[in-house]
Amino acid sequence: MEKNDPNMLRNENIAKEKAEDDANRGSNDRFPVTVLGMGPMGRALAGAFLKNGHPTTVWNRTPGKADRLAAQGAVNAATAAEAAAASPLVIVCVLDYNAVQTILESAGAALKGRTVVCLTADTPERAREAAAWAAARGVDYLDGAIMTPTVTIGSPAAVVLYSGPEAVFEAHRGTLASIGGTATHLGTDPGRAAAYDIALLDLFWTTMSGYAHAVALAGAEHIAASDFAVHAQGIAAIMPAIMVDLARQVDEGRYPGDQSNLFSAAAAMDHIIHASQARGIDVNVLNAAKAFVQRAIDEGHGGDSFSRLTEMLRKPSA
Amino acid sequence: MEKNDPNMLRNENIAKEKAEDDANRGSNDRFPVTVLGMGPMGRALAGAFLKNGHPTTVWNRTPGKADRLAAQGAVNAATAAEAAAASPLVIVCVLDYNAVQTILESAGAALKGRTVVCLTADTPERAREAAAWAAARGVDYLDGAIMTPTVTIGSPAAVVLYSGPEAVFEAHRGTLASIGGTATHLGTDPGRAAAYDIALLDLFWTTMSGYAHAVALAGAEHIAASDFAVHAQGIAAIMPAIMVDLARQVDEGRYPGDQSNLFSAAAAMDHIIHASQARGIDVNVLNAAKAFVQRAIDEGHGGDSFSRLTEMLRKPSA
Repeated sequence: MEKNDPNMLRNENIAKEKAEDDANRGSNDRFPVTVLGMGPMGRALAGAFLKNGHPTTVWNRTPGKADRLAAQGAVNAATAAEAAAASPLVIVCVLDYNAVQTILESAGAALKGRTVVCLTADTPERAREAAAWAAARGVDYLDGAIMTPTVTIGSPAAVVLYSGPEAVFEAHRGTLASIGGTATHLGTDPGRAAAYDIALLDLFWTTMSGYAHAVALAGAEHIAASDFAVHAQGIAAIMPAIMVDLARQVDEGRYPGDQSNLFSAAAAMDHIIHASQARGIDVNVLNAAKAFVQRAIDEGHGGDSFSRLTEMLRKPSA
Repeated sequence: MEKNDPNMLRNENIAKEKAEDDANRGSNDRFPVTVLGMGPMGRALAGAFLKNGHPTTVWNRTPGKADRLAAQGAVNAATAAEAAAASPLVIVCVLDYNAVQTILESAGAALKGRTVVCLTADTPERAREAAAWAAARGVDYLDGAIMTPTVTIGSPAAVVLYSGPEAVFEAHRGTLASIGGTATHLGTDPGRAAAYDIALLDLFWTTMSGYAHAVALAGAEHIAASDFAVHAQGIAAIMPAIMVDLARQVDEGRYPGDQSNLFSAAAAMDHIIHASQARGIDVNVLNAAKAFVQRAIDEGHGGDSFSRLTEMLRKPSA
């Protein structure tokens, strides 16, 4: 094993961090943590670490975002380098990887031997690039994706996915537990968490678009949004079983339409489109969704279940 | 109150039905039920009535769909009129209201004095038209919407929404309970159940489109659909609280973006669009959803929460 082998470096780093951590422990046994990025999620993360007794250092590109956290005991660092130097574990939670890259570059040598946990949402490619950047500089790196809203942070409802070296995850698992809820390590590929993240966000934002539209359609029939929300929760309740069924069909490559098929989906979508148009409500999203269902029907798959669309999306026609 | 007042007719009908029902009760105390339409949902409904001991008559436009139900004791009627004559309560569950209209016309005079419960999905206008058609012919009418899949019928998981005269709903509530789960009467406007139905289906089918796409995107990163489904259920789990929050904002006409705003939604959608395009996956639905978010940003609402879109959808620009 070469001196520059990333695994060797990693193991050295972990040992070094452990020693530093022991030295850094103050009046309690919680390791220090740095959070870079004081948007709503970064503030929530720093708040959760503080609340759990971690000496917490924070930094933001533009100042003034962490005043409340500072009043609660957080150290407000003047630079990203100063913030990185303060803790063996450095969380980065910013808008995207362009911002991540700028911040990590500016922190520079202060990151060497530390662990960066990047909780910024971006593509798997960018996560892998960030991991490679870190490895080349002797920085341990985990990529993570927060799957629940800011209000869940620090509570049992939080869900965070991680990927990257298992030893690094295990070394910081205890500290990361302060984020709350469920932490899942998805594998060593640093892009794995981002791959799940982006697909889950795909589902989330499309669902959100559907919800905003459905509330508008209900409103056109004088149904109050809050009355509608009560019943909309029923749709969220039936999705898990449907998701599992459709996923099994996709994995098996079989799309039985005996319970519900693309013909009936198209008919339902047409009803919704016509009802929306009759009320002057934009139907671009529904039209695009219906057009894809129609393409499946035109290709002879009308009797198949909705899961057929996934196969078609995977193999677009020329 | 005139002799032809629909309420007068309705009250007479209910009294008449009650007398007929008493006469019709056989070896048990369950009222006879007719189900017109033997698609998957019609069969599930008839099966639930049979299982609960109701003398059940069924009919379908094309024969042969009810053989299994007949073997379980259902009476397979030769015509819609014969089926309608067999029971005081006639359920209609077919593709759309064109089919409903054809069937009710063909049943003709046999429906007089009976109650039709239309569990066919269509628009509020069509439901109101069907109610008016029924009222003009001395037929009591309830419109309903089944919000859960066929497999839930007869189980506690079923959810059915009804609208129409409260007295008619109350008169048949006990029999309709055999469908299972939760029955909610939404009001006297016969279009109310369809209004909820179409908005809920809007949410459902847009969510389904998002799910099919998300599974394709995950698959492009070699994530098995069933592995993805486990985490996708987490998105379904966070939706109810988000739905309630957004609905309150819509009802209040205030769209605070302090936790999450349209700028960050647009950034997330761009990530997903780029990642999908890089994998050759169709992005028409996402592009349409993003374009609407962009329009809100262009109109100066980028700092607002996602619920701002509902107001914009309600009041489309010229």
